[in-house]
Amino acid sequence: MDLTEQTVEKRYVYRGRIIKVRNDLARLPDGNPCQREVVEHTGGVAIIAEYQGKIALVRQYRYPYAETILEIPAGKLNPGEDPLACGKRELEEETGLTAKRWIDLGMVYPSPGYTDEKLYLYRAEELAEGNRHPDDDEFLDVVWMTPSELDAAVRSGEIKDAKTVIAYFRSYR
Amino acid sequence: MDLTEQTVEKRYVYRGRIIKVRNDLARLPDGNPCQREVVEHTGGVAIIAEYQGKIALVRQYRYPYAETILEIPAGKLNPGEDPLACGKRELEEETGLTAKRWIDLGMVYPSPGYTDEKLYLYRAEELAEGNRHPDDDEFLDVVWMTPSELDAAVRSGEIKDAKTVIAYFRSYR
Repeated sequence: MDLTEQTVEKRYVYRGRIIKVRNDLARLPDGNPCQREVVEHTGGVAIIAEYQGKIALVRQYRYPYAETILEIPAGKLNPGEDPLACGKRELEEETGLTAKRWIDLGMVYPSPGYTDEKLYLYRAEELAEGNRHPDDDEFLDVVWMTPSELDAAVRSGEIKDAKTVIAYFRSYR
Repeated sequence: MDLTEQTVEKRYVYRGRIIKVRNDLARLPDGNPCQREVVEHTGGVAIIAEYQGKIALVRQYRYPYAETILEIPAGKLNPGEDPLACGKRELEEETGLTAKRWIDLGMVYPSPGYTDEKLYLYRAEELAEGNRHPDDDEFLDVVWMTPSELDAAVRSGEIKDAKTVIAYFRSYR
């Protein structure tokens, strides 16, 4: 069965700082018209890094949930930026760590029903410590967990962040 | 360190069918003002179900990526709906399967930087076959994979959908 939908008209309803939003007119596989809402996002990069037996996590306030949660270091791609370059920058900014070896853990779609965000995952190895330098509007604490502590946390649901769960499993299981 | 941000003003910029979008005025932990973009979503439910040695997946066109991808059965919560009730409905609608036993695989945040969507994951067991009855605007094919085929696909990146990767790992590894 051909499942393809056709875009009839791209209609931007919001152009913001992090996201743009469209409410497109589209055509279903059976030819009927429909509306499709799309959140445009430049994409993100997340990095799992184990240094001296502990994995680096960051504790951050996530405004949409009004909650402080644990995630692996991550950041937003600048338009056109290479994901690996972004990963190197974000890991160093948030944790001070630099790495000599980067393993590609693949890419995932966080919520394909409405967002076009692509999340690139890496494992950073052969690490060295440097200085953190988070962005001015970035407030975070670095937290270290052993692999077995993180294993328990991603299974129990203490870790809620999808990219952290996936990077852990792809890297350690 | 107190990482909490305060909402100064909720400002809706778009109210659609699947999502609402805000560009709030907020206050950072240091007291400085900032803007926070939030996509409001009612949440989703995804179900991993193995029937006669094969796991049910659905192949669906995902408009934001202009691509047909494989995911476990899933759907959007109606406002106020119980996630488990939603899971039962969606599994039957999309695959025809009903289940006697439901295992809670926890909840995840797909992209906590900008969306408030919560994704509830279940494993359905003791399954029986019935009739599919997808929604009118839902076009999908059911695809069956053995656990070892799915293992390879979630590791290789053939499966890009985050909820599918997480439900597989939490359920099988």
